[in-house]
Amino acid sequence: MAAPSSLIALKKPIFLSFSPHNIFNTKPKTLILTTQLKTCSLVYSSSCTSINSSTTQPLVLNNKQEEKEEAEAEVEEEVSLGSIWREVQGCNNWEGLLDPMNNHLRSEIIRYGEFAQACYDSFDFDPHSKYCGSCKYHPSDLFSNLGLNLHKGYTITRYLYATSNINLPNFFQRSKLSSIWSQHANWMGYIAVATDEEEVARLGRRDIVIAWRGTVTYLEWIYDLKDILCSANFGDDPSVKIELGFHDLYTKKEDSCKFSSFSAREQVLSEVKRLVEYYGQAGHEISITVTGHSLGAALALVSAYDIAELNLNHIPENNTKVPVTVFSFSGPRVGNLRFKERCEELDVKVLRVINVHDKVPSVPGIFANEKFQFQKYIEEATSFPWSYAHVGTELALDHKKSPFLKPTKDLGCAHNLEALLHLVDGYHGEEEGEEKKFCLVTKRDIALVNKSCDFLKSDYHVPPCWRQDENKGMVKTGDGRWVLPDRPRLEPHRPEDITHHLQKVLGTSNGEPKLLH
Amino acid sequence: MAAPSSLIALKKPIFLSFSPHNIFNTKPKTLILTTQLKTCSLVYSSSCTSINSSTTQPLVLNNKQEEKEEAEAEVEEEVSLGSIWREVQGCNNWEGLLDPMNNHLRSEIIRYGEFAQACYDSFDFDPHSKYCGSCKYHPSDLFSNLGLNLHKGYTITRYLYATSNINLPNFFQRSKLSSIWSQHANWMGYIAVATDEEEVARLGRRDIVIAWRGTVTYLEWIYDLKDILCSANFGDDPSVKIELGFHDLYTKKEDSCKFSSFSAREQVLSEVKRLVEYYGQAGHEISITVTGHSLGAALALVSAYDIAELNLNHIPENNTKVPVTVFSFSGPRVGNLRFKERCEELDVKVLRVINVHDKVPSVPGIFANEKFQFQKYIEEATSFPWSYAHVGTELALDHKKSPFLKPTKDLGCAHNLEALLHLVDGYHGEEEGEEKKFCLVTKRDIALVNKSCDFLKSDYHVPPCWRQDENKGMVKTGDGRWVLPDRPRLEPHRPEDITHHLQKVLGTSNGEPKLLH
Repeated sequence: MAAPSSLIALKKPIFLSFSPHNIFNTKPKTLILTTQLKTCSLVYSSSCTSINSSTTQPLVLNNKQEEKEEAEAEVEEEVSLGSIWREVQGCNNWEGLLDPMNNHLRSEIIRYGEFAQACYDSFDFDPHSKYCGSCKYHPSDLFSNLGLNLHKGYTITRYLYATSNINLPNFFQRSKLSSIWSQHANWMGYIAVATDEEEVARLGRRDIVIAWRGTVTYLEWIYDLKDILCSANFGDDPSVKIELGFHDLYTKKEDSCKFSSFSAREQVLSEVKRLVEYYGQAGHEISITVTGHSLGAALALVSAYDIAELNLNHIPENNTKVPVTVFSFSGPRVGNLRFKERCEELDVKVLRVINVHDKVPSVPGIFANEKFQFQKYIEEATSFPWSYAHVGTELALDHKKSPFLKPTKDLGCAHNLEALLHLVDGYHGEEEGEEKKFCLVTKRDIALVNKSCDFLKSDYHVPPCWRQDENKGMVKTGDGRWVLPDRPRLEPHRPEDITHHLQKVLGTSNGEPKLLH
Repeated sequence: MAAPSSLIALKKPIFLSFSPHNIFNTKPKTLILTTQLKTCSLVYSSSCTSINSSTTQPLVLNNKQEEKEEAEAEVEEEVSLGSIWREVQGCNNWEGLLDPMNNHLRSEIIRYGEFAQACYDSFDFDPHSKYCGSCKYHPSDLFSNLGLNLHKGYTITRYLYATSNINLPNFFQRSKLSSIWSQHANWMGYIAVATDEEEVARLGRRDIVIAWRGTVTYLEWIYDLKDILCSANFGDDPSVKIELGFHDLYTKKEDSCKFSSFSAREQVLSEVKRLVEYYGQAGHEISITVTGHSLGAALALVSAYDIAELNLNHIPENNTKVPVTVFSFSGPRVGNLRFKERCEELDVKVLRVINVHDKVPSVPGIFANEKFQFQKYIEEATSFPWSYAHVGTELALDHKKSPFLKPTKDLGCAHNLEALLHLVDGYHGEEEGEEKKFCLVTKRDIALVNKSCDFLKSDYHVPPCWRQDENKGMVKTGDGRWVLPDRPRLEPHRPEDITHHLQKVLGTSNGEPKLLH
């Protein structure tokens, strides 16, 4: 791991400076260090209560006193993301950045969460579509179709698919039709790389993102998990184990299908190998960031571990390691304690963002988990097969702290990614064991919370589950008929692209049996 | 009633001549009289079975034999709609036009059904919208927004509203929000008039359309009906009675609301008076066509009766009567036997199009109805208060005859207007007590059937309930926020417009108490 950046001053608390007038219409200033210690709750406390519930303009703050306080803050130094990116990516396990919440980190968590959310927003869930289970957009248009301006600096270089021929009936989407794009595959996400030079400069490095799709609302897949551990077998240590369903999802393939004739694993490893080699040879600073929500968070951790275990993040030209970071949202446990330890040995940095009311992060591992004092003993001495441990640093948020959300017992709300990103936006750390007052910081639109759930208070006039296509994608043709239009042909994997790099990674062109259980 | 048109030859059977190659891509020719008697089932029988179920092009006919048969048919005379419009509007109670189905009548039933369907497609049902219960479009844009090219020859001259302060809780749509367009009103439909001279020429007269909104799928309102009869009191005979709920819906008003400070009745009567006077003075031939589906069909009959009872269809300049026709879809019974008789005395022509599997046309009147031999006796002698009679000519269709539809027990499907129009398109009359083979005639798109129900066989690849707005009407603003945009201000009634004509109709400027129970 490279040395921490020069930002030693980060040990001091960091505050965002923002105009209290209208947090939705003003661009947040960049992160500012203050010498004057002033807690965030002092700055925002009274204004945060002034939510105007009768208008769609949700937050208009106009407290003169606070403006004055803000003006008094002594600004020492502006710090760019590019200069502290290694800290934001977790080189110090996010120490000192979470409480109070560093604003660069906040923006980056949200940005990576949006990479994961893009997997939902572009996925065809409609069982009446012959494209059910695929991505609705071409890789070159995905971010622009979703209006994700922040992500336009990236180019998607590969779509990821998994075979649906594994036993997760409530996860995979299947079309009801017979003639469809693929009988055996589901789109699982994508790999993108920062290509816009302005964005690369802002980030301070060439960022490779791997985003995995999960399930946006339906949690039934969790009941399909058998909670059975199996050896990952990505490295040499058979005691490193992960849940069988995640392992299958990641490693299984279907020879007869051109989208899943390579496993998700083979697709990821070959593409990461190719990108790291390409940019590493050119001497670029690189980061690998893996993200996902729900089941996608599990795949994010598995693939990040795999990349590190296979040493794909090593650049031989200058003998450096590319940092591997997981921004995990609402993720379940993935593997055993040994898996967790191995991730730590390999310096895989994991920030686990969860809602404390969400049930998914509490499974699997209800019998034995990282909170159990003797886990190491029972795992090593008795080979207890249902022992799971979370990996990394937890950022636990509580939706009850947001004044924008209504009370709900809907587990889908507590598990919702957009709602979680909303909580990240309003989180400021703790004080005397209590979470500080919830105050939104970035321009992030609260309406996004209700995109696919019913969680916002009705005062905000945002319909529940509002994200939907016009007429379910039906369009009127020139002769007046309504049809589901054909989409541009989906590009399957070109075997030669994958085998070439797979050979370098695994020493075999189509996956060595030993490695690809 | 004016004399029937010159089309005496109509006593003979009438057939549509059409190219069997592709009924969806060829424009149907106009109605053609043939001397050679040849039943429709002979012409279409074998080709109708050649439904290609694996493609979205649902019907491609290619039977050489039938082409030959068609060529043999001797074409005597092409008859335009304009020359037979009085028959199509029912001056002879549609005698000879329904079996086999006259093609002009078929097209006109569908066209008027689309006027009624437009009330659904433009209605804001969303309880999360502050415009819930209103029409989504400005009157000038309604038809074009719905892509109804056939209806562009009409200009909407008035929107109709009813007060929701009556006891039909499952009919009226109410917003969950507090600040809304109206606390007391629901949009109920519109009045339009043919203004395009080409369309007027095609129709053969200046057509005034009154279209009433019903309920597209939810049938709960039917349980709210108390089945209690009350005197209509639109004329002098108190024995003419209609169901109390329909009467209230039509006559009640709410002074505090500028949309329902006039009752629906007052809105209709004043506007019809104005239009008939305006075009009658100019010497135009005029028709009044009232249409509606479900509860809207009940209002269509009530208002048509009212217009005729008040003699609003009389043109004093040339002492002629404007024909008043109701195209009623899936309508319930409305009034007692005396009401029915009075409609007949007043020459109100009613074509009741129903699906035999729909329950709505069987209510109210389960105790005593037109099928009951002694209805006249019990109504007159005992004043039995639950005696109802259907009015007019029935066109009973059976959704089981359509090869495009799947078996369903969903009552909403059997009641669906789009499905009913599909049945009209394929209906050819009866033969030996059996409905002839179902064959589509017009270009009407089968995908429309699934607009708001799940009724088409899955072979046709049309998603169920596909009619929906993109993102429930949420749009992204310039600063990246998602909002429900404000709509142009809804135009309430201008009292001076209504009172002036109401005065002429009812002898009072705001509705005489005697008449407006």
